[in-house]
Amino acid sequence: MTDFDLPTYVSPDAPLSPDGLEAALRDIGARRYHNLHPFHRMLHDGELNRGQVQAWALNRYCYQAHIPRKDAVLMARLNSVELRREWRRRIVDHDGEDPGEGSRGGDDGGIERWLRLTTGLGLDRDYVRDMVGILPATKFAVEAYVHFVAEMPLLDAIASSLTELFAPTIISERVSGMLANYDFVDAEALAYFNKRLTQAPRDSGFALDHVRRHALRPDQQQAVLDALIFKCNVLWAQLDALHFAYVAPGIVPPGAFRP
Amino acid sequence: MTDFDLPTYVSPDAPLSPDGLEAALRDIGARRYHNLHPFHRMLHDGELNRGQVQAWALNRYCYQAHIPRKDAVLMARLNSVELRREWRRRIVDHDGEDPGEGSRGGDDGGIERWLRLTTGLGLDRDYVRDMVGILPATKFAVEAYVHFVAEMPLLDAIASSLTELFAPTIISERVSGMLANYDFVDAEALAYFNKRLTQAPRDSGFALDHVRRHALRPDQQQAVLDALIFKCNVLWAQLDALHFAYVAPGIVPPGAFRP
Repeated sequence: MTDFDLPTYVSPDAPLSPDGLEAALRDIGARRYHNLHPFHRMLHDGELNRGQVQAWALNRYCYQAHIPRKDAVLMARLNSVELRREWRRRIVDHDGEDPGEGSRGGDDGGIERWLRLTTGLGLDRDYVRDMVGILPATKFAVEAYVHFVAEMPLLDAIASSLTELFAPTIISERVSGMLANYDFVDAEALAYFNKRLTQAPRDSGFALDHVRRHALRPDQQQAVLDALIFKCNVLWAQLDALHFAYVAPGIVPPGAFRP
Repeated sequence: MTDFDLPTYVSPDAPLSPDGLEAALRDIGARRYHNLHPFHRMLHDGELNRGQVQAWALNRYCYQAHIPRKDAVLMARLNSVELRREWRRRIVDHDGEDPGEGSRGGDDGGIERWLRLTTGLGLDRDYVRDMVGILPATKFAVEAYVHFVAEMPLLDAIASSLTELFAPTIISERVSGMLANYDFVDAEALAYFNKRLTQAPRDSGFALDHVRRHALRPDQQQAVLDALIFKCNVLWAQLDALHFAYVAPGIVPPGAFRP
């Protein structure tokens, strides 16, 4: 299926060129991004039942809901006005605008769009927002991401967002696959993903450029690659937990959502 | 197997008695402690092969190795000399004494004893200590525990250690079951657990007494119960991840230990 024994990309005494670093980052994505996980393939290919898709959307809500907190904790560490402005845009993307305060209007944000998906799947809005039925492993993975961004060097924290380099492919696969295969999913419920098709490349383009310009020493480059591996693990572990609880062997942990 | 729909133990306007609170804590353990997990039963009953027992011991090392850090971060928040002395004892239990500095001699600590177990199982000592083959989900769960103790109210942080109330039963089951069922495990390798048979009751007795005396309001009591549930989830999620990767369906995540 895929090769998990990563090559050694960086040698301690010869830094990679920016293009070499980018190639190494893309190679990690090709080997470890969660589009390779069996749960993801089942989701795309229409092999899940409605309860399993509900469990996926419910748990993924926990991830979505933490992303603006992750971005805020990173923004809180930035000294540069320009970088903070760039990062603030990510928070607006997820949290949207308050329609009562003379905003540009219209965009209620990615979290609200995700709630349209969970509601479209028949889940109660308050149940989803309270996150009481989330798998503990989902919470642990998501919180590990927030803590990573709060505690690691800034370059690593920014690099951990680079999974978005690989998002457009998975999103277009996901939208077409889910629309074709599940009669309980409609285009309106998948509005979240259409927005991400333009947001993700803009964000990952900025972060990639930053990393290409600032990760110059071999130790920095290794740290950037490790940050991307960490983030791939955060995404992968969430699908492991979903697969274990809701597909095979199908042992739902105490207190978690039961379809 | 067990009932995961917990009763409501605390009503907002009527606090439990100390005995009532203790009964509620013990009830949570009876429903959610990881001795109920199918992986644990397989471990005890001799149904795992050597590679699966290796994977368990390797991942559990990550938990053991973080416990003194968890205790240190809690100690760093304590104002009371008496409480810090009590908590320091836990760190000594795990980290042991430096034989070169006129110590009482003999006790090299729980982490060193755990390494005797992993070495006895045929794992390389440095490989275990580097934790490179650990399941990401193990790390995320363990780090969630350290962060919980660092960030939550002190009473909750102390209460999260109360899973040790339930440790003696599981330990004696484990030692006798593993000695009887696995010819690759001997008593020397299980020395860790014999020590815990006296350490765990001493530690949990102290924490239980503290909680009984200080969790008096209903909101405090609810927080204490929630802290124990959180900790049960930390232990349970580790077995979920082991079961998923090494038993069924047996999908080892990228980069993790392959027996």
